[in-house]
Amino acid sequence: IICVGAEPVNFVDYVALNPFKVPKAELLKELNLGFKECLQTLLDHGIKVKFSGGETADQPDQVRTLDISGTINGRVKLTSVISGERIKPGNLIIGLRSGGKTRYEKRENSGIMCNGLTLARLCLISREYQAKYPEISAEERGYYGKYRPDQYLDDLGMTVGEALTSPTRLYAPVVARIMDEYGPYVTGLVHNTGGGQTKCLRIGRNIHYVKDSLPDADPIFMLIQKESGETWRAMYENYNMGVGFEIVAEEDAAEDILSIPERFNLEAKIIGRCEENAGFNKVTIKSRFGEFQYP
Amino acid sequence: IICVGAEPVNFVDYVALNPFKVPKAELLKELNLGFKECLQTLLDHGIKVKFSGGETADQPDQVRTLDISGTINGRVKLTSVISGERIKPGNLIIGLRSGGKTRYEKRENSGIMCNGLTLARLCLISREYQAKYPEISAEERGYYGKYRPDQYLDDLGMTVGEALTSPTRLYAPVVARIMDEYGPYVTGLVHNTGGGQTKCLRIGRNIHYVKDSLPDADPIFMLIQKESGETWRAMYENYNMGVGFEIVAEEDAAEDILSIPERFNLEAKIIGRCEENAGFNKVTIKSRFGEFQYP
Repeated sequence: IICVGAEPVNFVDYVALNPFKVPKAELLKELNLGFKECLQTLLDHGIKVKFSGGETADQPDQVRTLDISGTINGRVKLTSVISGERIKPGNLIIGLRSGGKTRYEKRENSGIMCNGLTLARLCLISREYQAKYPEISAEERGYYGKYRPDQYLDDLGMTVGEALTSPTRLYAPVVARIMDEYGPYVTGLVHNTGGGQTKCLRIGRNIHYVKDSLPDADPIFMLIQKESGETWRAMYENYNMGVGFEIVAEEDAAEDILSIPERFNLEAKIIGRCEENAGFNKVTIKSRFGEFQYP
Repeated sequence: IICVGAEPVNFVDYVALNPFKVPKAELLKELNLGFKECLQTLLDHGIKVKFSGGETADQPDQVRTLDISGTINGRVKLTSVISGERIKPGNLIIGLRSGGKTRYEKRENSGIMCNGLTLARLCLISREYQAKYPEISAEERGYYGKYRPDQYLDDLGMTVGEALTSPTRLYAPVVARIMDEYGPYVTGLVHNTGGGQTKCLRIGRNIHYVKDSLPDADPIFMLIQKESGETWRAMYENYNMGVGFEIVAEEDAAEDILSIPERFNLEAKIIGRCEENAGFNKVTIKSRFGEFQYP
């Protein structure tokens, strides 16, 4: 919703669960608290989302444990849509950090958000845990890590379980404020979920996104790469690698825009720029692990 | 949406699947065709639903095979909402059949719609099938029926598999027409999904729904009861038992309203009436299997 410059209207949730494995009443109570907390945080920042209820379905034949999803509807004037069409060579890319702790959050966040979690679980969590809870792992592969979920790692500054279950950050409070103050200078908005650092490929036309000043990836990403042996190229494709949200903006405004995330104690920096490319979109990542081109 | 007298705006789908068990491209292609067919059927009857896309999530750790859900948003003037508050003693209950074949459908429907399917599968499908496809059945219970999905049963007039996978009927074309022509006389609308013949308990105030003229339940319901040994009381609570949709209407208009489903070749009849009840809603079902009271 926020990525096209729209205002949210309402949210509907859908919970599919296996009532033989999951304590239903407890789950629904926790979810209710979580939804309330999220909606209140948004409201505190002037973003009103109406919770329109939802559906809870007992699906013991289909679902091993639980699967929670939701739909947000929003509204935007067609003339104000941020579609990425206005992205031009020379625009700068501002990256908002995925880890850390903003002023509107209660706990430190590992930064993993909601992508690549299957690999993360598999390579970090030990077989012992799988034997205890067979319902949480696909038979095809299984856990092969060396950690217990409650194991504290100095590198992470939290337990492995806390790192894996860190909530996806709500960027809306910050982005809404950026749009209020600098909307006309913003040409693209990208929430780095599926696709990680290459998700920007989906917007703009004939743009070469050159990211040569990415911040250090949060410790969770370093750990996943080490334990899984995944290539760095694939890591940048599947994980946000420390930058959860990107704002593409006109060069003149980029420095000024950085002052807004700062007010929220959200780290932000200019991570790259847009260049022209012939015929298709391209991403180049220049990191200390190598230079990678996509697609 | 239709049950509160609203007009649909848009539809968003969500598909959670196990890519190791389900051929993803094939599934998405079939779903796309199915959505198109549904939306076109609705459009042919003047009901415009915008398909706003959706999300497909690979969830091999959570989902055995697949789980498909969707969200429809609608719009209605608050003054036109059908909330059930206007239901009065003396109102009649019109039942729309769940089985059969309307003019806007291609195939005969078993009538089962989308509720009670877990029990239906378990009691009808044989262990042999479970051994072949262990991923489609919860380990806790398992199939204990005597049929193969491709087995044709004279009683059903179709195969067991066709009966179990019969789509939930779209009642919107018929109900929209009823609302157009008789809206002011309609006091309640009930889609008999979860709760079956007792779903009407959720609307109205101090109403006793007396259903004494229900049509014969479709053959699929008779078969499920016979094979599972479920009580008839529970059958009426979990299944629609042949009536998929109910319209509560003022007595004067009820006979006239019946002419509309008839135009669509959808069987309809007056199945009961509303009486006064002290302090809460109640349903009485008088059937050839006994008289049942809920709650």
